Amino acid sequence: MAQVYDRVALIGLGLIASSMFWAMKRSGLAGEVTGYARSDETRATAREIGLCDVVYDDIKDAVRGADLVVLCVPVGVMGPVMAQIADALAPGATVTDVGSVKKDVIEQITPHLPEGVHFIAGHPLAGTEHSGPRAGFAELFDNRWCLLVPPEGADPEAIARLRNLWEGIGANVEEMDAEHHDLVLAVTSHAPHLIAYTMVGVADDLRRVTDSEVIKYSAAGFRDFTRIAASDPTMWRDVFLSNKEATLEILGRFTEELFALQRAIRQGDGDHLFDYFTRTRAIRRGIIEAGQDTDAPNFGRSAGRKL
Amino acid sequence: MAQVYDRVALIGLGLIASSMFWAMKRSGLAGEVTGYARSDETRATAREIGLCDVVYDDIKDAVRGADLVVLCVPVGVMGPVMAQIADALAPGATVTDVGSVKKDVIEQITPHLPEGVHFIAGHPLAGTEHSGPRAGFAELFDNRWCLLVPPEGADPEAIARLRNLWEGIGANVEEMDAEHHDLVLAVTSHAPHLIAYTMVGVADDLRRVTDSEVIKYSAAGFRDFTRIAASDPTMWRDVFLSNKEATLEILGRFTEELFALQRAIRQGDGDHLFDYFTRTRAIRRGIIEAGQDTDAPNFGRSAGRKL
Ligand SMILES: NC(=O)c1ccc[n+]([C@@H]2O[C@H](COP(=O)([O-])OP(=O)(O)OC[C@H]3O[C@@H](n4cnc5c(N)ncnc54)[C@H](OP(=O)(O)O)[C@@H]3O)[C@@H](O)[C@H]2O)c1
Ligand SMILES: NC(=O)c1ccc[n+]([C@@H]2O[C@H](COP(=O)([O-])OP(=O)(O)OC[C@H]3O[C@@H](n4cnc5c(N)ncnc54)[C@H](OP(=O)(O)O)[C@@H]3O)[C@@H](O)[C@H]2O)c1
Repeated sequence: MAQVYDRVALIGLGLIASSMFWAMKRSGLAGEVTGYARSDETRATAREIGLCDVVYDDIKDAVRGADLVVLCVPVGVMGPVMAQIADALAPGATVTDVGSVKKDVIEQITPHLPEGVHFIAGHPLAGTEHSGPRAGFAELFDNRWCLLVPPEGADPEAIARLRNLWEGIGANVEEMDAEHHDLVLAVTSHAPHLIAYTMVGVADDLRRVTDSEVIKYSAAGFRDFTRIAASDPTMWRDVFLSNKEATLEILGRFTEELFALQRAIRQGDGDHLFDYFTRTRAIRRGIIEAGQDTDAPNFGRSAGRKL
Repeated sequence: MAQVYDRVALIGLGLIASSMFWAMKRSGLAGEVTGYARSDETRATAREIGLCDVVYDDIKDAVRGADLVVLCVPVGVMGPVMAQIADALAPGATVTDVGSVKKDVIEQITPHLPEGVHFIAGHPLAGTEHSGPRAGFAELFDNRWCLLVPPEGADPEAIARLRNLWEGIGANVEEMDAEHHDLVLAVTSHAPHLIAYTMVGVADDLRRVTDSEVIKYSAAGFRDFTRIAASDPTMWRDVFLSNKEATLEILGRFTEELFALQRAIRQGDGDHLFDYFTRTRAIRRGIIEAGQDTDAPNFGRSAGRKL
């Protein structure tokens, strides 16, 4: 595929940045890819595993001369990081981010944006519960969505280039406004994560059931929760604090519904439960038909080694 | 392996019964395996796919002469089903069940138990979100736990035989008392299922986000919930109604913790969130080390077809 950017700078070298790097190398869409991470340790790891063509110790050096700068840090620090790089950005360059929240990130980044630099916010809907520079792989974005949130009046050319890059590394791209993005993600990702974290915490707290029993007998339902709840604490703290309003709205509705179901259990109202559970089945079928998941039982996952 | 039972009767021919059948055939532990299901349709399907050596139209014929009878029906109907077969059971036979709740099931079955028939309750901790006679496969129980709940004074010989069968079809067997079983399962399975059902229902209800958006952009967290929430409505209605007390206790604790986390989000208390999320990570590591799940990112599951 033809090169879309001559020089791409990845700021923050974790799961998302490293996956982007390997995917860009696979696709040949980027010329040189530079990188920067906050800690000596992550930079050393990146150099060791060949993550980025050049890893810089100075964040400004990493972005100098780049025609695309991708902010791949937790959403809580997007503003400060942007402030650090602002005066090293090349005129005509595009800044984008991969943060899981958009309204707050856009509000953090915009004030620091120099004249003549484009900013198009983004969010690839792809991830795993692993993090850090070794977690990435080229296929992460394949057939996943990447949502772009360009500001009003954004340069169509700059949007098209960024779209080309994401499509070239496997994603399907759509544009969305920031507020709607944050609500959709609160429903499909942020609230479910908080709920999973909560349930795993409850299990851990329960005196009469030991952690080792919980672990030993963890059935399908709980196993999936623990996977979600194993995600990076910094990333998720930042997500909840930055998408406060939408997350709290969804959690409010969730609590209401949960109370109604608890009441149905208490009162032995089997019909209420049955109808509710029947309705939720349909949405699953939709996901499988939309190709977002496999229909293999239990994800086709096989058990671990024999104990 | 040597034959453990000469004649096994499977009552109810869904996911669990069909998996037991294929696993018994794989292991050679059972002589003849008979079966019965409520509907003509399921019995016809069973005959078509060779599920059971003989499928009977009369439940009593299915259990006559069996030295092991396995009740594989929803937990809400264990008592009535047991009442139907009671006077056809052979002296010295063992009755067991695979229900997801134990205290209530034992209370339902025990009154109908004829003299000289053993009853040892059981529960294999293995399942998928699929159900019905076509859903089973021989590997379902491999390396999974099967919990046996023998009544006080149960015949050690009868317990040992049942244990041999479960081990022979791949499971690891432990004994547990009914009350503890129901609490452990409320934490690791029943409450998580209700929570997943609730969250999927909330998503479906939200006017400002369409179902098709929810489906299209369903990220890791929500996708797992929809899988759980796609489970059989009858089975789960019965589970919640039969394990009312323990489920409501766990849900009460869950709601309390969730409120504390919601408050932390509202007040911007990042440390509370970070500490909570860090603690939940450890429990996940335990599960992987115990061999109950794979460490491959995202369960190693691959995306569906390109849209
Ligand atoms: N993980 C997912 O599932 C997922 C999915 C979609 C979008 N996202 C978004 O993608 C972004 C990155 O996530 P990730 O999963 O790639 O995270 P990650 O693997 O934890 O990597 C985060 C990177 O950011 C750096 N960083 C952290 N705090 C920083 C700070 N205060 N200043 C400068 N750099 C800092 C880290 O540097 P050190 O290594 O030196 O600490 C690390 O290189 C986040 O905004 C997240 O919301 C994540
Ligand atoms: N699925 C799991 O993940 C899982 C895991 C462990 C234990 N269990 C337990 O295993 C048992 C069976 O579950 P399953 O997943 O195998 O269910 P399933 O696939 O839905 O099959 C249930 C079977 O029970 C029969 N049945 C339903 N209602 C009946 C009634 N009123 N009288 C007589 N037969 C009736 C059904 O007959 P028709 O087909 O004719 O309707 C069907 O053959 C349940 O007690 C469940 O709690 C399930």
